[in-house]
Amino acid sequence: MLSKIDLNCDLGEFYGMYDEVRDSRIMPFISSCNIACGFHSGDPVAIMKTVKLALRNEVAIGAHPSYPDLQGFGRRIMNLSSEELEACVLYQVSALKGITESLGGNLHHVKPHGALYNHAAKDKETAIGIVKALVQVQKDMLIYAPAKSVLSSVAEDAGLRVRSEVFADRRYEDDLSLRSRKLKGAVLEQKEHVLKQLAGFLDGVVHTHDGLELPIEAETICLHSDTEGAAELAKEINEFLTKHDVRITSD
Amino acid sequence: MLSKIDLNCDLGEFYGMYDEVRDSRIMPFISSCNIACGFHSGDPVAIMKTVKLALRNEVAIGAHPSYPDLQGFGRRIMNLSSEELEACVLYQVSALKGITESLGGNLHHVKPHGALYNHAAKDKETAIGIVKALVQVQKDMLIYAPAKSVLSSVAEDAGLRVRSEVFADRRYEDDLSLRSRKLKGAVLEQKEHVLKQLAGFLDGVVHTHDGLELPIEAETICLHSDTEGAAELAKEINEFLTKHDVRITSD
Amino acid sequence: MLSKIDLNCDLGEFYGMYDEVRDSRIMPFISSCNIACGFHSGDPVAIMKTVKLALRNEVAIGAHPSYPDLQGFGRRIMNLSSEELEACVLYQVSALKGITESLGGNLHHVKPHGALYNHAAKDKETAIGIVKALVQVQKDMLIYAPAKSVLSSVAEDAGLRVRSEVFADRRYEDDLSLRSRKLKGAVLEQKEHVLKQLAGFLDGVVHTHDGLELPIEAETICLHSDTEGAAELAKEINEFLTKHDVRITSD
Amino acid sequence: MLSKIDLNCDLGEFYGMYDEVRDSRIMPFISSCNIACGFHSGDPVAIMKTVKLALRNEVAIGAHPSYPDLQGFGRRIMNLSSEELEACVLYQVSALKGITESLGGNLHHVKPHGALYNHAAKDKETAIGIVKALVQVQKDMLIYAPAKSVLSSVAEDAGLRVRSEVFADRRYEDDLSLRSRKLKGAVLEQKEHVLKQLAGFLDGVVHTHDGLELPIEAETICLHSDTEGAAELAKEINEFLTKHDVRITSD
Repeated sequence: MLSKIDLNCDLGEFYGMYDEVRDSRIMPFISSCNIACGFHSGDPVAIMKTVKLALRNEVAIGAHPSYPDLQGFGRRIMNLSSEELEACVLYQVSALKGITESLGGNLHHVKPHGALYNHAAKDKETAIGIVKALVQVQKDMLIYAPAKSVLSSVAEDAGLRVRSEVFADRRYEDDLSLRSRKLKGAVLEQKEHVLKQLAGFLDGVVHTHDGLELPIEAETICLHSDTEGAAELAKEINEFLTKHDVRITSD
Repeated sequence: MLSKIDLNCDLGEFYGMYDEVRDSRIMPFISSCNIACGFHSGDPVAIMKTVKLALRNEVAIGAHPSYPDLQGFGRRIMNLSSEELEACVLYQVSALKGITESLGGNLHHVKPHGALYNHAAKDKETAIGIVKALVQVQKDMLIYAPAKSVLSSVAEDAGLRVRSEVFADRRYEDDLSLRSRKLKGAVLEQKEHVLKQLAGFLDGVVHTHDGLELPIEAETICLHSDTEGAAELAKEINEFLTKHDVRITSD
Repeated sequence: MLSKIDLNCDLGEFYGMYDEVRDSRIMPFISSCNIACGFHSGDPVAIMKTVKLALRNEVAIGAHPSYPDLQGFGRRIMNLSSEELEACVLYQVSALKGITESLGGNLHHVKPHGALYNHAAKDKETAIGIVKALVQVQKDMLIYAPAKSVLSSVAEDAGLRVRSEVFADRRYEDDLSLRSRKLKGAVLEQKEHVLKQLAGFLDGVVHTHDGLELPIEAETICLHSDTEGAAELAKEINEFLTKHDVRITSD
Repeated sequence: MLSKIDLNCDLGEFYGMYDEVRDSRIMPFISSCNIACGFHSGDPVAIMKTVKLALRNEVAIGAHPSYPDLQGFGRRIMNLSSEELEACVLYQVSALKGITESLGGNLHHVKPHGALYNHAAKDKETAIGIVKALVQVQKDMLIYAPAKSVLSSVAEDAGLRVRSEVFADRRYEDDLSLRSRKLKGAVLEQKEHVLKQLAGFLDGVVHTHDGLELPIEAETICLHSDTEGAAELAKEINEFLTKHDVRITSD
């Protein structure tokens, strides 16, 4: 069984109306966060406040770059060339990194957002665009990516450090991709199901939507901040892990 | 008479349709450039290409942050709090700095754009917002600002290095502010007038619209890239300075 | 005492992530709504869904145009010329009107948003920019504006119909402007205070922050959808009015 | 041979910096124009000025809606659902239609822009999204579309009027799609080649990149405003047509 794990959460996902309360509720239960960089959400004030909030809570700070798609919250694939993607990612990560350093912190990792995350998991040109940007920012940048994805292999080949990410409340397909939100059964609604999937992760396995038990590597678990009862679920997961002697850390 | 001067130019001011030709024409004649950071213009691809162009031409790179006003090209004052302004400037400068460093260069200076530049020259809260951001990015950041402006004095008090900027082709008022583009006689249309004003700068004086001769400190001269015949005028100015034994340098 | 009144609410204020639940909760209690047009909030999908929601609930539809300021949710004054303002308002109202008509409804009114609403209440050039746009859309367009404001008098002079708007949960100053949110006591937090102010409106008076009792014309009351307990408060206000034989209608 | 044809041009493609001169130069030579609606370009001031310019020149006004992609000038396919696309197109066409009517004109047609135009020519779901929006704006709206494209057949089936568009200065592939700008030979650089292709259109044929002579229906010809020598080429084409007794009209 795992002896330690990272709990991450997407934060700062506001544009024009920052709601610090929502983000601050989940802070005590996580070890790292992914902060929106302005392209799917995250205006400059929201970013600055979220970075400060993370620093105060000693939560490791990651950049959460997206396709340039405010209208769609970064949830729609865009047909960018790998050069365009490189520029978009470089811009966003640079902004987040600079703000974090100016406020006295360090950029810990990068995690692509939404459609960019899902598309890079399968599409090599997309993965290359992201990785080309990150290598330039920092030779051995840490990236959160789905286990055994195209993104993680492209990243490793380029010398980046990769952390395998799993989702506690999302159902998996047999190819270890997340079941689409457009299909039934994409989200685990009941706490018991979430904790059961979590227990599986600790043992290195997941039960897919079609009933298979598959091996899966879980180095960081993504929690949500924007769903009903998100902070409560985060608290439960945090306690569940602690009870099972799994250390929660971004290290 | 001056023995050296900096020639700067606003570049990368494209959004969605980068025109490398326009920018590259003026490159041979300037020593530093101010690159749009995305808020009044300058999409990520434009930024990346402009930074590369500047590096190839050994032109010093500055960030050119603006109010968040794409629709108005940053030419309209916005009533931002100094905290909002700090966040906006920090975001833009961080993005430009990160991209420049990733591509192997260094950020040389910062010059606010358009309405932000003009308003900060007179309004203390605005100047404070900008300066608070810059101090955090780098304690002794170099800023281009109008001579004897509120911005330059706030910047100096905070420990920033300040370079006094003058405009070769813009007419000055008696308070050394630029004559508004909404008024007649704001722009010097004839080459002879531009070169005459330039000669004045070298001797430390300017003749205002109302006919006064006033002392003015000229450490950097702003050229334009987007007007008819811009590159030709830049060439003339460059040659004029060289002929008068004034070294053109960003140092 | 008043025999009828309009209850209005700002809706569709989402960008990238429409939350139909929040808006639909308040629908049963209001007679008209002001739909964000995309400049401070309100992406096309949000607009289309909000218009459909209003049509299903037989709530009168208004356009809610703003300064072009997504990052600041339209809460910051921008120094636009009256021509720029005219273009911005014309664009937004046209978009909302066209969508509403395409979906089988009619545009009932226009209400400026946030800083534009507050600034036009006092600043003549701003009021003129708005009114010039509206007159072109429809000669006798109905506009919601603060009673006795510059906006309402400019609108009346131009032939627009004006409806005087009051706020049930905001404290008034002695000049009948809203007390700034930056000051203490700007918002009435307790239900009893809101209902007491409401009762005053029905009798044509308001008690200001400094204790004066002033006459005020109340033709439409603005409710909020985005505060804690907003729908419950709307229900209380709706019932309070019904109990006092005040008909709630957008007519 | 054809007795009449429409000459159209994409106009108002500015954001933040309207350049009326560029657009006004081509106006005398065209019969209809497609005005950017704000999503790939075209801020409200640019739209208003372009509509006025077209009205003064008695050029028929069309809406030119795009994917929401300012950064990419609408040149990148975005994976929008047909509902999202419907909302985007409805918003843009409504804005342009409302502004045009407010200024005393009528919306003549709609022509999708860039990647949206090209993708809808082949992809049924995309075509459906566009057409669903247009039918709601006006039952028999006129749409410009590539001859024999998916878009034109979906539009006809829905009751829209369709005008077949051809490009005078772009090379065609054997499936009558435009040769990609990423490939060599996409654009006809020499005037003689353009006029030769034009003469073919008048006889209902085109010679493809691979040398085939194929039948093609030409009801409207797209000219460019933003290339070197655009106005001169437009003048030549206009004169060529007049000389061959082809009437240039938007009817």
